[in-house]
Amino acid sequence: MTYCVAMRLADGLVFASDSRTNAGVDHISTFRKMHVFEARDNRVLVILTAGNLATSQSVITLLRSRTHGGDGDHLLNVPTLYDAAELVGETLREVLHRDAQGQQQCQGVDFGCTMLLGGQIAGEEPRLFMLYPQGNFIEATSDTPYFQIGESKYGKPVIDRVVNYDTSLELAYQSALISFDSTMKSNLSVGMPLDLMVYRNDSLDASQRHRIDDSDAHFTTVRELWNQGIRDLIHRLPLPQLP
Amino acid sequence: MTYCVAMRLADGLVFASDSRTNAGVDHISTFRKMHVFEARDNRVLVILTAGNLATSQSVITLLRSRTHGGDGDHLLNVPTLYDAAELVGETLREVLHRDAQGQQQCQGVDFGCTMLLGGQIAGEEPRLFMLYPQGNFIEATSDTPYFQIGESKYGKPVIDRVVNYDTSLELAYQSALISFDSTMKSNLSVGMPLDLMVYRNDSLDASQRHRIDDSDAHFTTVRELWNQGIRDLIHRLPLPQLP
Repeated sequence: MTYCVAMRLADGLVFASDSRTNAGVDHISTFRKMHVFEARDNRVLVILTAGNLATSQSVITLLRSRTHGGDGDHLLNVPTLYDAAELVGETLREVLHRDAQGQQQCQGVDFGCTMLLGGQIAGEEPRLFMLYPQGNFIEATSDTPYFQIGESKYGKPVIDRVVNYDTSLELAYQSALISFDSTMKSNLSVGMPLDLMVYRNDSLDASQRHRIDDSDAHFTTVRELWNQGIRDLIHRLPLPQLP
Repeated sequence: MTYCVAMRLADGLVFASDSRTNAGVDHISTFRKMHVFEARDNRVLVILTAGNLATSQSVITLLRSRTHGGDGDHLLNVPTLYDAAELVGETLREVLHRDAQGQQQCQGVDFGCTMLLGGQIAGEEPRLFMLYPQGNFIEATSDTPYFQIGESKYGKPVIDRVVNYDTSLELAYQSALISFDSTMKSNLSVGMPLDLMVYRNDSLDASQRHRIDDSDAHFTTVRELWNQGIRDLIHRLPLPQLP
């Protein structure tokens, strides 16, 4: 499985993804699910992927190879992020057409994948989209400033409690880390290392990327303090009156 | 949907269930999912149900009506909780046979349901079983002292962080409340009122049942303190170094 989350907040964007893939529990691998497309001083686009790895890898490969030449639209020349979302959706349908007769389900296999696409193109505000396996998509708003894909349920409560549109990027980043810790504690199909990226509005800079593995000091500290903090917190609550 | 959790701990058992059912978001109702069978000084059996309401209601109705007479095995006369689990599984298969040609999926509808069965029969230790939609079942052990059915993912991390076999019944009850709060905060298909029950080893007493609705003072306090505590806790963590 997979877990990815992306947030579109007042100050910028936060992206996070795990790197575990599995085809059954006896076939577990590590693949990066965060893919960055950038053109200096012009745009930063980030795609997070969940679902069928063959499909998502092909989509990313085609999107990237098409930025290297030719006259057609590609991620480094489309004028808006909305156009980029349309292009990603179209490429997803193209791969499904090639590999699975245009169906999400084919020969008993789920070929579908979901994606998050966020970033900024010069002249526009930063934007964030979630693409469904059918290639259509929705955009995040200040009412609903974050999207999750993959194993999203374990890590949703902490984000729902902490994050809104005006949350600082630091706190949103922290919430994403806790959300991943909760998920990895309860589900084996989401695993380290994690990829995180923070994008500040109008920076057009994709350099704030972190790969977090088991040796990461900040994450290790945060996980321990959080786990202990939760246990302390529940002990401090007023006890129910049981006989 | 539904969320139910049951724990088999050193000191006894804890059961909790919500009461929301839905057939689409425009057909939402309230049904108790906790069903108690008791014979004074002899046994306490608790069944929690998730899944197709027509199936689970029929199973409970048949199980209960059969305790009122006849010579056959029923929940108030079987000698062990293992036998009770077998009987519940058999009754589930009987209903699926009658309503859905013995299949879980029939005419595009999921007729399946999952159940938790726990309690104590005089002469045995307290025991806890989880029944699959096929009617087979597994038993909780000290390594894995709790089971969840229905919308289980949102509320799993907090239980995984807090509960083990030696956790007190008070703290386990508290964890169940928090687990439901987290679930209800992130998922509309799980809703109040909640039914909770605590069973102390060898009491053979099913009287410790609580129905918790929106006006419950303890739950309201716990929810508020927890939500504030989580937000305080995340603010106290060391901040990541972002540019």
